[in-house]
Amino acid sequence: MATTMILDCDPGHDDAIAILLALGSPEVDLIGITTIGGNHGLDKVTHNARAVCELAGRPETPIHAGCRRPLIRRPIDAAYIHGETGLDGVDLPEPSRPLAAQHAVDWLIETIMGREPGTITIVPTGPLTNIAMAARLEPRIVARVKEIVLMGGAYGVGNATPVAEFNILCDPEAAQIVFNESWPVTMIGLDVTHRALCTPEVQADLCEANPRLADAVGGLMDFFRSTYRDQEAFPDPPTHDPCAVARVIDPSLIPTRRCPIDVELRGTLTYGMTVTDMRALVDDSDPACTTRVGTGLDAERFWELVADALARLG
Amino acid sequence: MATTMILDCDPGHDDAIAILLALGSPEVDLIGITTIGGNHGLDKVTHNARAVCELAGRPETPIHAGCRRPLIRRPIDAAYIHGETGLDGVDLPEPSRPLAAQHAVDWLIETIMGREPGTITIVPTGPLTNIAMAARLEPRIVARVKEIVLMGGAYGVGNATPVAEFNILCDPEAAQIVFNESWPVTMIGLDVTHRALCTPEVQADLCEANPRLADAVGGLMDFFRSTYRDQEAFPDPPTHDPCAVARVIDPSLIPTRRCPIDVELRGTLTYGMTVTDMRALVDDSDPACTTRVGTGLDAERFWELVADALARLG
Amino acid sequence: MATTMILDCDPGHDDAIAILLALGSPEVDLIGITTIGGNHGLDKVTHNARAVCELAGRPETPIHAGCRRPLIRRPIDAAYIHGETGLDGVDLPEPSRPLAAQHAVDWLIETIMGREPGTITIVPTGPLTNIAMAARLEPRIVARVKEIVLMGGAYGVGNATPVAEFNILCDPEAAQIVFNESWPVTMIGLDVTHRALCTPEVQADLCEANPRLADAVGGLMDFFRSTYRDQEAFPDPPTHDPCAVARVIDPSLIPTRRCPIDVELRGTLTYGMTVTDMRALVDDSDPACTTRVGTGLDAERFWELVADALARLG
Amino acid sequence: MATTMILDCDPGHDDAIAILLALGSPEVDLIGITTIGGNHGLDKVTHNARAVCELAGRPETPIHAGCRRPLIRRPIDAAYIHGETGLDGVDLPEPSRPLAAQHAVDWLIETIMGREPGTITIVPTGPLTNIAMAARLEPRIVARVKEIVLMGGAYGVGNATPVAEFNILCDPEAAQIVFNESWPVTMIGLDVTHRALCTPEVQADLCEANPRLADAVGGLMDFFRSTYRDQEAFPDPPTHDPCAVARVIDPSLIPTRRCPIDVELRGTLTYGMTVTDMRALVDDSDPACTTRVGTGLDAERFWELVADALARLG
Repeated sequence: MATTMILDCDPGHDDAIAILLALGSPEVDLIGITTIGGNHGLDKVTHNARAVCELAGRPETPIHAGCRRPLIRRPIDAAYIHGETGLDGVDLPEPSRPLAAQHAVDWLIETIMGREPGTITIVPTGPLTNIAMAARLEPRIVARVKEIVLMGGAYGVGNATPVAEFNILCDPEAAQIVFNESWPVTMIGLDVTHRALCTPEVQADLCEANPRLADAVGGLMDFFRSTYRDQEAFPDPPTHDPCAVARVIDPSLIPTRRCPIDVELRGTLTYGMTVTDMRALVDDSDPACTTRVGTGLDAERFWELVADALARLG
Repeated sequence: MATTMILDCDPGHDDAIAILLALGSPEVDLIGITTIGGNHGLDKVTHNARAVCELAGRPETPIHAGCRRPLIRRPIDAAYIHGETGLDGVDLPEPSRPLAAQHAVDWLIETIMGREPGTITIVPTGPLTNIAMAARLEPRIVARVKEIVLMGGAYGVGNATPVAEFNILCDPEAAQIVFNESWPVTMIGLDVTHRALCTPEVQADLCEANPRLADAVGGLMDFFRSTYRDQEAFPDPPTHDPCAVARVIDPSLIPTRRCPIDVELRGTLTYGMTVTDMRALVDDSDPACTTRVGTGLDAERFWELVADALARLG
Repeated sequence: MATTMILDCDPGHDDAIAILLALGSPEVDLIGITTIGGNHGLDKVTHNARAVCELAGRPETPIHAGCRRPLIRRPIDAAYIHGETGLDGVDLPEPSRPLAAQHAVDWLIETIMGREPGTITIVPTGPLTNIAMAARLEPRIVARVKEIVLMGGAYGVGNATPVAEFNILCDPEAAQIVFNESWPVTMIGLDVTHRALCTPEVQADLCEANPRLADAVGGLMDFFRSTYRDQEAFPDPPTHDPCAVARVIDPSLIPTRRCPIDVELRGTLTYGMTVTDMRALVDDSDPACTTRVGTGLDAERFWELVADALARLG
Repeated sequence: MATTMILDCDPGHDDAIAILLALGSPEVDLIGITTIGGNHGLDKVTHNARAVCELAGRPETPIHAGCRRPLIRRPIDAAYIHGETGLDGVDLPEPSRPLAAQHAVDWLIETIMGREPGTITIVPTGPLTNIAMAARLEPRIVARVKEIVLMGGAYGVGNATPVAEFNILCDPEAAQIVFNESWPVTMIGLDVTHRALCTPEVQADLCEANPRLADAVGGLMDFFRSTYRDQEAFPDPPTHDPCAVARVIDPSLIPTRRCPIDVELRGTLTYGMTVTDMRALVDDSDPACTTRVGTGLDAERFWELVADALARLG
């Protein structure tokens, strides 16, 4: 049976691939997308999410715009990576359907409270503001969510700072809320996603998998590669966000380890760091620890999964 | 014309007096009460708010329960001051009307967005979680609120810590949000409210003003005095919350000064302090500074105002 | 019997008056001056200390230069108040004696360890780096010092920030060390020194007291007044540092209260604040609390004390 | 030519091996040992340092006791690892020579100022209080030290907390001073030393290398192994401190990378973390970056180096 999924994202090049992966995978029933200001402002990322669904031939996917800014800290963005539109490098179709009127946070609460407990998996691939707001506004959702599998954080090297990852650094206070609630949280951080490098060979495979989407996927990846080269000294771009979707589709792609994770809110050098206790040998069945961290990636099978999903989008 | 007011409170002995003052004052049109966990848990303070309206003969006042816990920090309470029920010392009538179903935050947003801009004054007398959540969930309310006049904070001596006041310390992150948004905020802190001492003479006047309410008011004040004596070494209890309502009714009771106010979120000794720049000589018409602080109280006229309101409740 | 005093200072206009007060008071046996970078760099303030002793006719006073920079934080200075030389507005005589070779910290330790325990009062009127370094290098001095009476800090309004005083903010970590050791510490903060305003009338009295020094004292105060007017909106300059010396000479000039004092090291808005618990009613004989804070000033008698000292310098 | 070395340590089982390695290596001219409270109190670790020199047959090695406590934070210790004496598991000979009278900090300053600039390498293997105090008391030593090669810190997993290493956590403020001064600092952290595991085979080789010392070395390692097993879930003990000495003797044993390192002083979860920017590709000849970090260990050759040194001690 397909996993009921809500994708909470801020497209963004790698978010776009995450959306396509979710829409093209029979293992996923994507019941809605919520958007959040992060890689770029809320209006741009919301437009981008709608345009990607249009591109995928799935314009009916419910899309709800969420919070415009982080809880406490001043907003930052990643325009230097994703360009002026948040999705530079490709001409996307105009969305054909109007944006849903309801706020993402209200929709999340209504949807989670209206479905059977334990059925909904949330996959956040942007700042965690919407998820944190929903948990504070309606605490009963926490016990009803099946799982949160998020792209964000790192236990090793960071990207936005030496030790912090961009999504978490966008709203560390929201992240602290999400990691400290009692729902199961799996963190797919840079430790995993820096292995999801879109090499030219990978890109060629993706383009070949779906000739209709080849121009769009190729354009996205060309732009993403060029900014990652210039700004981050990466030869090929780490394609972060689809890793979290992939972990839901096939957990065997990404080994995880149960260990305590919390978010540093007061450090001068470490603000926004996901402090992960890799010392602790927590028993995998210990219910006191509700957080897991991804520790690797079967990159070959990961890219096959993406290619297969693209192919299915026809 | 009466000021349209929403009271956001956590009764609490002094909150109870604040409610009675608002209900008994023709200068105030109290369109609703929202509640917030603070002095005690959300369920108790919400029940107390309803019971106080019942006591006042105003059971139709709309009451909406709000957030159960602070945004980030762990909850604290003031049961040591307000007793087991949050309103010890008095037998209140059972509420005759059901509690409104809508969440306080949603009701605040709907109400503010549904009325003319610049018409609603919010008077928070508890932790600022509801107000902060509403501002984050619907940022457009900020420009539509006429004014926030809150009881909380201090520029001098604190109560919960050497430099922090209890309401702010309950949710410093929420307070930081409220003080940093662009709406006009007037802080009525301990610098004002420690002058609103309910001496036995004052208490006698209040009881005399309304014989029907005399037992309740006297019981509340007797209990409040005893805990303030035992726990805080105050001879008479400072009756904090009605001061904020009084400032709205008659600004001349409480002189204020325009100056920058922010909330310390990272200090070890100063977490939750309302850092008020009393050095700055900000011009009173400088629009860049949207915060004001109360600096005194005409205690005699304040207590007359309260007595008159009680008398009007019949 | 005269109090054996060491003055640890960073002249600075008000430090200069503090030196003159100590040298001209028979109640004080000033056995040495140690200097510390603060109001200005170490070399300038050390030169200024020597020049002031020369001016006072006491060139033989031992002067030892101390630490060049704070323990942890980056250095700040107050050139905007004290001018290019640290003592602008007056031509001082060249020092006739060479500077002592020994480092202030080593001299402090040797002197304190070499005298009878309980005989030396230290009066710091600059950043507390030297005193903290001495306490860490030779912990046994702590039990041997009679008392530390320092100019610094505030429980009310600050000067360098809304809540921090300049001397403490120069080296908050050093201040934290000094306030937390077990020696008796009396804090003479802005709460006291903002009452020591050198009005033109006061200045005239000081100049009249010693015609030989009138030009120098008048020049110092004219410059100090002008920068305090322009930079701080004070009509007359608060003459901070001699207040601490005056408290040693005549404790009745400055009432104090025993209460816990600590220094905030982590606050974003409150770094360097002397957090003073004015709530606590600590018994004045409670040995667990070793810190006292000045709460007022008999300004008239204070200025008489200064004038008398100047007169005695002949 | 042998490297002139000062070892600043807190023995400690692994410090003992570090001392033996330095004394037994012809590449090292150990001109003195300074001690610091850390693994245990100052008196115990100083006694242990003297006893280890006695054991090594080098009782004439100058040993100076240093600071008793960290600069700012409260002291912690590692008695749970090193036992009651700080060096449990072995009977060491009584020191035959008296302890030097001069304080370690004064001796460090005098020694560094008295020798040719650029000739002295300091190897700290405990908290950095002595080194920081010396740099603050006599800033001119910074330009005269050839290099600091310290055991402490980590860029990956910590030991005392999820992200902090014990030596640094003992006095993070001192560490911040040391890493931010302009001398060359090489950090040999847990990333290196967790590869220096003393397996039973290694231990057998060490004992065989010097039959006279076999009982002592074996006893030390047996105890160290047992506490690391019980307390840290390590099968064999990581023998941290000699790694720093080994890096000086033969840099090829430990590859390093030039990158910025700083110490977090304000984090709640990250206090004492050595924040190492592994993102930056700093040019190895860039003089603006004076810090290097060890990234690996040739464990086999490392243990041969230790065995050879033990053999030479006869």
